[in-house]
Amino acid sequence: MSEKIPYKTYLDEKEIPTAWYNVRADMKNKPAPLLNPGTHQPMTAEELSVVFCDELVKQELDNDTAFFPIPQEIQDFYKMYRPSPLVRAYFLEKKLGTPAKIYYKFEGNNTSGSHKLNSAIAQAYYAKKQGLKGVTTETGAGQWGTALSMACSYFDLDCKVYMVKVSYEQKPFRREVMRTYGASVTPSPSTTTNIGRAILEKHPGTTGSLGCAISEAVEVAVGTEGYRYVLGSVLNQVLLHQSVIGLETKAALDKLGEKADIIIGCAGGGSNLGGLISPFMGEKLRGEADYRIIAVEPASCPSLTRGKYAYDFCDTGMVCPLAKMYTLGSDFIPAPNHAGGLRYHGMSSILSQLYDDGLMEARSVKQTDVFEAAEMFARVEGILPAPESSHAIRAAIDEALKCKETGEEKTIVFGLTGTGYFDLVAYQKFHDGEMDDYIPTDEELAKYAANLPKVD
Amino acid sequence: MSEKIPYKTYLDEKEIPTAWYNVRADMKNKPAPLLNPGTHQPMTAEELSVVFCDELVKQELDNDTAFFPIPQEIQDFYKMYRPSPLVRAYFLEKKLGTPAKIYYKFEGNNTSGSHKLNSAIAQAYYAKKQGLKGVTTETGAGQWGTALSMACSYFDLDCKVYMVKVSYEQKPFRREVMRTYGASVTPSPSTTTNIGRAILEKHPGTTGSLGCAISEAVEVAVGTEGYRYVLGSVLNQVLLHQSVIGLETKAALDKLGEKADIIIGCAGGGSNLGGLISPFMGEKLRGEADYRIIAVEPASCPSLTRGKYAYDFCDTGMVCPLAKMYTLGSDFIPAPNHAGGLRYHGMSSILSQLYDDGLMEARSVKQTDVFEAAEMFARVEGILPAPESSHAIRAAIDEALKCKETGEEKTIVFGLTGTGYFDLVAYQKFHDGEMDDYIPTDEELAKYAANLPKVD
Repeated sequence: MSEKIPYKTYLDEKEIPTAWYNVRADMKNKPAPLLNPGTHQPMTAEELSVVFCDELVKQELDNDTAFFPIPQEIQDFYKMYRPSPLVRAYFLEKKLGTPAKIYYKFEGNNTSGSHKLNSAIAQAYYAKKQGLKGVTTETGAGQWGTALSMACSYFDLDCKVYMVKVSYEQKPFRREVMRTYGASVTPSPSTTTNIGRAILEKHPGTTGSLGCAISEAVEVAVGTEGYRYVLGSVLNQVLLHQSVIGLETKAALDKLGEKADIIIGCAGGGSNLGGLISPFMGEKLRGEADYRIIAVEPASCPSLTRGKYAYDFCDTGMVCPLAKMYTLGSDFIPAPNHAGGLRYHGMSSILSQLYDDGLMEARSVKQTDVFEAAEMFARVEGILPAPESSHAIRAAIDEALKCKETGEEKTIVFGLTGTGYFDLVAYQKFHDGEMDDYIPTDEELAKYAANLPKVD
Repeated sequence: MSEKIPYKTYLDEKEIPTAWYNVRADMKNKPAPLLNPGTHQPMTAEELSVVFCDELVKQELDNDTAFFPIPQEIQDFYKMYRPSPLVRAYFLEKKLGTPAKIYYKFEGNNTSGSHKLNSAIAQAYYAKKQGLKGVTTETGAGQWGTALSMACSYFDLDCKVYMVKVSYEQKPFRREVMRTYGASVTPSPSTTTNIGRAILEKHPGTTGSLGCAISEAVEVAVGTEGYRYVLGSVLNQVLLHQSVIGLETKAALDKLGEKADIIIGCAGGGSNLGGLISPFMGEKLRGEADYRIIAVEPASCPSLTRGKYAYDFCDTGMVCPLAKMYTLGSDFIPAPNHAGGLRYHGMSSILSQLYDDGLMEARSVKQTDVFEAAEMFARVEGILPAPESSHAIRAAIDEALKCKETGEEKTIVFGLTGTGYFDLVAYQKFHDGEMDDYIPTDEELAKYAANLPKVD
């Protein structure tokens, strides 16, 4: 093979974006504001700053500023692991025999193993700048917790991570990476918080959930002098920071003279998808270009494809503000057989609004189909993908196979958010034929949807 | 920071080497030949080709050809994960407060997690070209086995891996990566071979060793139609393939206008060190430039610094040819507390000869010092290093600290061979204070050395 377009395109370090792009500035229908769970009034900056760092509150509430300059310290840190490569998937194309051109933006070449570091370093920076002692957070699979630990270590901040108990026990290695970076990791629910103790009393054998770990982390942040809470997905600020993925992707495509037809990302809370698509969606919103944009979610946790667009709690303990989003209900927990991450019950307000406005598509995929795609990808592209990322791989393969049928030479771009080195228990289940495809019934979903809070 | 030299230097894909460099061509004292263990006569190509692929035998025996063109199929595969970055360790320099300039060549950004893939793909290619059905090999920590599985999957070759039993049990995830690539993995010693059964009968509770796994893999290769044995280190052919590391490193330094003063690599069997230093050693041998070259080995397995330069068996079962090398004796097994890889009893014949000729230095380091360096590195450079690679980090830090004392602005280059994602049990021991620094006594080493075969 001696293609004109290289396998991997790296921007120069000087071409790493120096400002994040805020897609809200170009949205006609802005995402709905966060509401105070007691009064159902929009959360003020003052109210939010009890939980979040001041500068991050500003970013959260700003629907108008299109570009936020990236502080020099964060730009410096980005150089540690960015720019990330835009890879032309020649090997995958050949394997599929498709006329489509497939590209993926690979965010897994850093020790946190995923794109989460892009926002973690920003949030740690603003916490440090505010003179805080430390931050608290929750983590499920552990990618966000690992990323935040790395970021806090860099700025010499204390980092308290509440890790969903089942992951804490099943993924001791992620925990050890966090310890390498000096973080403290507590299995959730724990006896260190009121909400944790209450949940343990009610459900003594519980293995925990993301919503519960969020509640614990928020409680500790609010109750500890010099601490704030940080979150790795869902929020507007997170999508803002993650826009670095999309900006780099677009810059690399422009450099190659390529134009994407279809952009695909996996979607849990929306951090990767929102970041990846931002500049493309911006062009679409401004009428400068058109793209098919596809969110891919697990069939076992189908918030966009089967959820309701409504205000809901972000956490189990109901201590967080209400967010308007496509949601399955804050009590919804995906079946334990679901190994592939993306387990959050709701979806970023920005993405929910864009989806509701018909500006992007969504589809759900079954987990055995996802792992089949993951294994094929690993064999031909040489990267062992994270289960989360593999949802996007599945959809990219399906689109490329459609092109094979129609003969269309479309350009498909997808986000490969991370590596699966800490997910090999899931791969093992797949190899041993012990993975199934449980999908919630309509009755189940209706039960959870009935518990949504009433907001006028 | 706004340095002129970027954090990461990637060559263009067109600059990936198209020929491997054979340092033997420039050695005045050639490495001693492999000997037939029965007759003590140099092994002929015919004898070797029972065990190894024909083309690899040619490469093994050729002390004169300076450059071997890299076949196009291998060049294509290299584009999947090469060029690897040459990283300027600005963050580490700052942390140390050293005037030294530190660079590292990072080979961990591929799913095998290390440099091993560079030779695995070459060996798989030649096996395929010869029309073989498959290959056998051994693996200890699992990096080589993983790399070979990836390579065999690419060329649709069967791959039988004998994995040291203790690693098989303690590192199930590595095993699962190999399964993802379709390899079969057998814990060694096993009941599938004569040598395995004999060892199990003699030592029923044994957890295995690299030397024993080699014997099993060779037995199966020799006894199975259409199979050959492949090895990931020690051999001349392996150092030849790994020269791609050094060639890229040198090309990147030349591009930056930098000249190395000190080149540092970890050394187990010598695959990484030999590859990294090849072109620099070539210049040194030809009198064109001078470099300090430092091999770093574990204090618990000190073949260069405390071994004898003599002919020895490469494996426990004594089925392999004899190699002249710095060796601790083929019965030597490092203390089980040693977590850091680099456990082989001998050292590549090429490196042994260069060391004996005074062309490079060697030092041994204690494992707690190694993990201390690893953790510091992870925190500032954002890469969780493999324990093996961390031996080189330790020495690089020590040299940089010497520069701090003397004020010298030396340029230090070291090989960062891989990532530590599958080594977190070792990190955990380090964090929990359960890691010690056992070093073999002179009496112990003398006991093993006394068993070296007698060769005139």
